[in-house]
Amino acid sequence: MSETLVIHARIATMRGGKYSMIEDGALATSEGRIAWVGPMAELDRQKLPARADPKMLDAEGALVTPGLIDAHTHLVYGGNRAAEFEKRLEGASYEDIAKAGGGIAATVKATRAASDMELRDQSLARLRRLMAGGVTTVEIKSGYGLDMHTEMRILRVAKLLAKDIPVRIRTTFLGAHALPPEFAGRADDYIELLCKEMIPAIALDGAADAVDCFCEGIGFTPEQTQRVFSAAHEMGLRVKLHADQLSDLGGAALAARNRALSADHLEHTNEEGVLAMAKSGTVAMLLPGAYLFLRETKLPPIELLRRHNVPMAIATDCNPGTSPYTSLPLMMNLACVLFRLTPEEALAGATAHAARALGLEEEAGSLEPGKSADFVVWNAEEPAELAYTGGVRPRAAYFAGTYRT
Amino acid sequence: MSETLVIHARIATMRGGKYSMIEDGALATSEGRIAWVGPMAELDRQKLPARADPKMLDAEGALVTPGLIDAHTHLVYGGNRAAEFEKRLEGASYEDIAKAGGGIAATVKATRAASDMELRDQSLARLRRLMAGGVTTVEIKSGYGLDMHTEMRILRVAKLLAKDIPVRIRTTFLGAHALPPEFAGRADDYIELLCKEMIPAIALDGAADAVDCFCEGIGFTPEQTQRVFSAAHEMGLRVKLHADQLSDLGGAALAARNRALSADHLEHTNEEGVLAMAKSGTVAMLLPGAYLFLRETKLPPIELLRRHNVPMAIATDCNPGTSPYTSLPLMMNLACVLFRLTPEEALAGATAHAARALGLEEEAGSLEPGKSADFVVWNAEEPAELAYTGGVRPRAAYFAGTYRT
Ligand SMILES: [Zn+2]
Ligand SMILES: [Zn+2]
Repeated sequence: MSETLVIHARIATMRGGKYSMIEDGALATSEGRIAWVGPMAELDRQKLPARADPKMLDAEGALVTPGLIDAHTHLVYGGNRAAEFEKRLEGASYEDIAKAGGGIAATVKATRAASDMELRDQSLARLRRLMAGGVTTVEIKSGYGLDMHTEMRILRVAKLLAKDIPVRIRTTFLGAHALPPEFAGRADDYIELLCKEMIPAIALDGAADAVDCFCEGIGFTPEQTQRVFSAAHEMGLRVKLHADQLSDLGGAALAARNRALSADHLEHTNEEGVLAMAKSGTVAMLLPGAYLFLRETKLPPIELLRRHNVPMAIATDCNPGTSPYTSLPLMMNLACVLFRLTPEEALAGATAHAARALGLEEEAGSLEPGKSADFVVWNAEEPAELAYTGGVRPRAAYFAGTYRT
Repeated sequence: MSETLVIHARIATMRGGKYSMIEDGALATSEGRIAWVGPMAELDRQKLPARADPKMLDAEGALVTPGLIDAHTHLVYGGNRAAEFEKRLEGASYEDIAKAGGGIAATVKATRAASDMELRDQSLARLRRLMAGGVTTVEIKSGYGLDMHTEMRILRVAKLLAKDIPVRIRTTFLGAHALPPEFAGRADDYIELLCKEMIPAIALDGAADAVDCFCEGIGFTPEQTQRVFSAAHEMGLRVKLHADQLSDLGGAALAARNRALSADHLEHTNEEGVLAMAKSGTVAMLLPGAYLFLRETKLPPIELLRRHNVPMAIATDCNPGTSPYTSLPLMMNLACVLFRLTPEEALAGATAHAARALGLEEEAGSLEPGKSADFVVWNAEEPAELAYTGGVRPRAAYFAGTYRT
């Protein structure tokens, strides 16, 4: 493993979820970790741990940030819903689409039918687009299999994506994404199967790092969600929740009561939910791509989240039905334009707070000695440029000290 | 110049502004032009004009479209307004920003101060981002100089961008973008200078292909606009118009009366304006990036434009104040999501109709024999995928038969 010494960089370390800028900075890696980061004036090469001569990278004033973290995606699925998108815009109703076997059912069918290789290739294309936007860590949920075999396949394919390319993958079991067709009208039976068989098997296999659930009028009830969470906890897995996206079912408070890593969406969350999240340390995961794509008008309670110091993360929610986007910087832009986050909050949402939402706050999300050497050198000078255009491109990215273009 | 023969492609030729798909198609280039395009079954290599052996590209079922055309940008400017974006989101009012010398005045100041080389480098970075989205033709407006010297510099820098890279640039003189500080309170005097000196000089120099004007309550009046248009016509230049973006000043009808190539924005255009455009053959240029960035709620009259068969084009409007975006596929996505265009309309808007908006309908915008060999091989199979995700990336792009990655 080669060591790198970046010099003359404008470093947004994101320490404490703030820019914490070092205007003329240097960053040294050692064995995949950040060995030193600080002002050029204090750089003392004699004290760096690198045993060999490090590769020097003169950033010439370019911006360096932590590698971005997309902490909520449904990246692995079969088929695509472009044709459905097209039919809708050509005037077909939701009923027409449903009758033609569209919607999430179409994706479940296509995912079950796809080979591991097909799933991998298709997901890899999306992963590469995410990475082209400076992402070094991606969370991937299952949830388009809805049976033991396919859910496990999705989680394995997800983990395997990191085998050949320098990226960190975290997986989440989202068996409670929708009711599988085999269980139509028998939601409680499916939840039973999920709690008694699927979650224990997935936990024992180590296939997932966490368990998620879609708690919604068109999804699962708070009671069913609680059963899923309890089963996860019994197996020692952390939880997170698709909460209050389309209606207020008290999802945020439910997530908080279960010490969830994050509560996600939150458009309809009330102050009680926000207070509960603040108390439990649950991260608010904002998903402006879905908000845009669904043309929602109810904004998540940003001002309340700010007031109660709930950390806000931002993710793509990359999925075929409600957020087909694959650019985290674009989501940062949308979080500012649509949700009125500041560019600093947006960058914290894609770095420090996203790391926390994955339980990775000791490992990634900020540039501090000892953490993984995940960082991006941008074709930009100011950190605000990232959210401003949503399209600045990395000049170079490093994952665990490994260079990638 | 090398010849190319693309085989086994799914070709959306965009003939007549429709997909006009060839499911298993081939496309042959010759001397930078399209020599032949049609179904594989009808491909007869003996009849192709290529004198040398063409380079074969097996698309393996991948989608091929015309090179995308971004027909409304303000790509060449100095400085950036990321800091202003940030200050606004941190709570500064428009007045605070204006007092601090922000807004368009800041960009004019930075543009005047920038050297040609600085302008070129900064604009080239944006151009490369556009090209990474499959763009092969870009219109670039002046309008951040607001004096003879700087406006001319902007137009020259714009044209020079095409010197070393395979892309087509069309330039537009937008001296009537805003009132320069030197003319505060003397708009008519500035218009006089523009008509008597600037437009004639620019026309004689061949620096611009067309003349544009910002007709708006905060811009120039319809009467001032007409003076600009008349001066352009006297010099043999076609016109286009920033029309009815923030209010209905009858801009669309004014543009139509002047046989404008396009009327742009159109959020507040009424049916009378649409009818006038239909009669004059003026293209409706939709700019969903500005609509999003400004959080507008008044939609352009899409249904009226459809009903009266006004061709709709889509562009980035790339500019530092109201649309800092540099992805035309993203604009296609926004045109569908926000304006409810169909993916086919969106693709026509970025190809055939965009070509017409630049007077290039004989040269580009569709894949037909004799036209410039500008085409993109996408990492996609169906044309609807482009607008659906807004982020599909080109596998390869060709401009006038020249390959570029
Ligand atoms: Zn989701
Ligand atoms: Zn414009």
